[in-house]
Amino acid sequence: MKAIRVGLLGLGTVGSGVVKIIQDHQDKLTHQVGCPVTIQKVLVKDKDKKRDVELSKDVLTTEAYDVIQDPEVDVIIEVIGGIEETRRYLLDALQAKKHVVTANKDLIALYGSELTAAAKENGCDLYFEASVAGGIPILRSLEDGLASDRITKMMGIVNGTTNFILTKMNKENAPYDEVLKEAQELGFAEADPTADVEGLDAARKMAILARLGFSMNVDLDDVKVKGISQVSDEDINFSKRLGYTMKLIGIAQRDGQKVEVSVQPTLLPEHHPLSSVHNEFNAVYVYGEAVGETMFYGPGAGSMPTATAVVSDLVSVMKNMRLGVNGSSFVDPQFEKKIKAPSEIFAQQFLRIHVKDQVGSFSKITSIFSERGVSFEKILQLPIKGHDDLAEIVIVTHHTSEEDFTDILQKLNDLEVVHQVKSTYRVEGNGWS
Amino acid sequence: MKAIRVGLLGLGTVGSGVVKIIQDHQDKLTHQVGCPVTIQKVLVKDKDKKRDVELSKDVLTTEAYDVIQDPEVDVIIEVIGGIEETRRYLLDALQAKKHVVTANKDLIALYGSELTAAAKENGCDLYFEASVAGGIPILRSLEDGLASDRITKMMGIVNGTTNFILTKMNKENAPYDEVLKEAQELGFAEADPTADVEGLDAARKMAILARLGFSMNVDLDDVKVKGISQVSDEDINFSKRLGYTMKLIGIAQRDGQKVEVSVQPTLLPEHHPLSSVHNEFNAVYVYGEAVGETMFYGPGAGSMPTATAVVSDLVSVMKNMRLGVNGSSFVDPQFEKKIKAPSEIFAQQFLRIHVKDQVGSFSKITSIFSERGVSFEKILQLPIKGHDDLAEIVIVTHHTSEEDFTDILQKLNDLEVVHQVKSTYRVEGNGWS
Repeated sequence: MKAIRVGLLGLGTVGSGVVKIIQDHQDKLTHQVGCPVTIQKVLVKDKDKKRDVELSKDVLTTEAYDVIQDPEVDVIIEVIGGIEETRRYLLDALQAKKHVVTANKDLIALYGSELTAAAKENGCDLYFEASVAGGIPILRSLEDGLASDRITKMMGIVNGTTNFILTKMNKENAPYDEVLKEAQELGFAEADPTADVEGLDAARKMAILARLGFSMNVDLDDVKVKGISQVSDEDINFSKRLGYTMKLIGIAQRDGQKVEVSVQPTLLPEHHPLSSVHNEFNAVYVYGEAVGETMFYGPGAGSMPTATAVVSDLVSVMKNMRLGVNGSSFVDPQFEKKIKAPSEIFAQQFLRIHVKDQVGSFSKITSIFSERGVSFEKILQLPIKGHDDLAEIVIVTHHTSEEDFTDILQKLNDLEVVHQVKSTYRVEGNGWS
Repeated sequence: MKAIRVGLLGLGTVGSGVVKIIQDHQDKLTHQVGCPVTIQKVLVKDKDKKRDVELSKDVLTTEAYDVIQDPEVDVIIEVIGGIEETRRYLLDALQAKKHVVTANKDLIALYGSELTAAAKENGCDLYFEASVAGGIPILRSLEDGLASDRITKMMGIVNGTTNFILTKMNKENAPYDEVLKEAQELGFAEADPTADVEGLDAARKMAILARLGFSMNVDLDDVKVKGISQVSDEDINFSKRLGYTMKLIGIAQRDGQKVEVSVQPTLLPEHHPLSSVHNEFNAVYVYGEAVGETMFYGPGAGSMPTATAVVSDLVSVMKNMRLGVNGSSFVDPQFEKKIKAPSEIFAQQFLRIHVKDQVGSFSKITSIFSERGVSFEKILQLPIKGHDDLAEIVIVTHHTSEEDFTDILQKLNDLEVVHQVKSTYRVEGNGWS
């Protein structure tokens, strides 16, 4: 029984996890697939570094092409990250008829279509379950488990760092900067947290989800992004008062032929299932026309959860090899890409304004909304401590288009009685109470 | 492009849902699989009954074997329910080289191994995703998404009726009988609710989950079952006081080579993710050695969610047909069945006792626990209104074996100061707060 041989690009935390799972679960893997799997070659930066996995030294190399072009290697597992250089590696690997498993969301978000085309052309598999929401088998669920359904909406908490920060801010009423610092000390945020806190990481994952869920070539540029660095503890306080929980939510929604994809801090009813996804956990809420509402919850990152997804992809490649059907599962996008204009995107909106406390203020403000046919679901007015001349007004609107809402904000800013529009957030999940 | 032809056994609510999805999503199905799918023959009880799906009358038949033996039929979808007769139908269908998709948990729980063997022998597919937790693609997630991991524990809310009843009892402090009646009026419970409320339906699903998750031929008889009909509103009140939510939980747990499978009313910390699964929804919590904790949430029943799972299975069969790999995905159980003895099953236990309010009662009770080395996590003692001579004692133990706990209960019952042991429940999910 010939073993299936793996070439590994990268032996960091995820790479080590992959080696551990392959070694520890060898029995299960062999049982499932019918043949053993071995690590043939591993790309590392430093062959002499001490590692906590047992690998014979002669499988290690510092030359990527020693792995990619090793004629003995059947499958390339890529866990080095990076974009341009890695793209080259994987295109060359596919060209050399190696199947590819990758955990690289940045790469797949940008070059997923190109890599898929190359895989198809070469009769190779390309799997990337680990690129979205680590240990949660969400891509498979969209492609297989919900294969017969028409997905109309996905809402995802797909970034652990920001969910950790917002959970803490929500629980402890602590300001953003303080919580970010704590998250960095605990290792839940990078020294440079920009990609996480500004929503770019989540945007990459939402582009991948939208592509699969809607069978449409959604690009990263199509995703509107707003991060959490401007979220204040006051915003969170006021949203809690009105029964909401603040989460960084990726939304991918289809109406008819057109889609919208965005990442933004969003208010959800406190009893919504996504509101109880705490700390660094991830979850993806999926709405299908027939199935209704489902949710997939689990660890979004971490070396072992990510490695689980990678090795599960490897199992799929191995099963395909045994059956001789590699490269046969690709489905071209069914629909031409059509992205909604701001006039076609509808949502409820939360906004918080400081207004001058004088007769007629409130009616001047509300008339701006009513001129555009936008009505209110919730209103809260409170005095502001230490500012007798100002009042705090918090409004949650009924559904309004983004175009109308932008226009309303513009008009409010021009209004003499408005001291400042403090913040606005999309509100989702109405109906949960 | 030749169409793939389906023979449908049953045209009730799920069967009609299957027809609707196949008709409405024909474009998507054709796009995914590369050929259309048509309904060839349908078994019904009454050909003249008015139906809300459009089907030409000559595809309807009242003879099962008109469907099973139709040479044009490629795939049999079974949604009639029933056990012995249906088993015969499906064995004959497999014998006639038809692939089979079924939503029938009763049948799969009892005859899953036999049907699988028959499918394998005939080179046919056999899929049954819809048999567990309706619209949640949990079997696929265990077999594919978590394929590389070693599953150590599954906890499932896999019966919508009992979850609906317990959610109501918990929210409204209403007694069981009243809530059951309401559930029956709303259509969430059958006129004869026995299979649901006594836990048998959940036990069938847990047997199927345990078989797949642990790769072991677990039988329905191996599942210990306790239903919810004895749960009192007082039990729920006291568990809430101590921070727990009562759920009917199916537990499948592996330690080393041995497993335990049970269904019983269980107390979970109120912030545990399973505690926020409300009403008729289902969820399965899965612990894997590498991945850690994941949860799959969604509708557990209902015609359209169940039909989604059935048609997704059909898509898998169709993809396999296109690739010529039907019947190749069966994996024999990896492990010999080993079921834990009561001395090997450990859990925390909640118990509620009425004791005579006299000096030394409490120490007599506690000494019975300490003789067996069982200590307490929580204790609550309260007077009982209208019974000056009695006191209510509620205890949550640390982990104890079932054997020791049974022995303790026996000893407590024999104790003169114990008026009555009112109830006991397993406690799970420690660590969530």
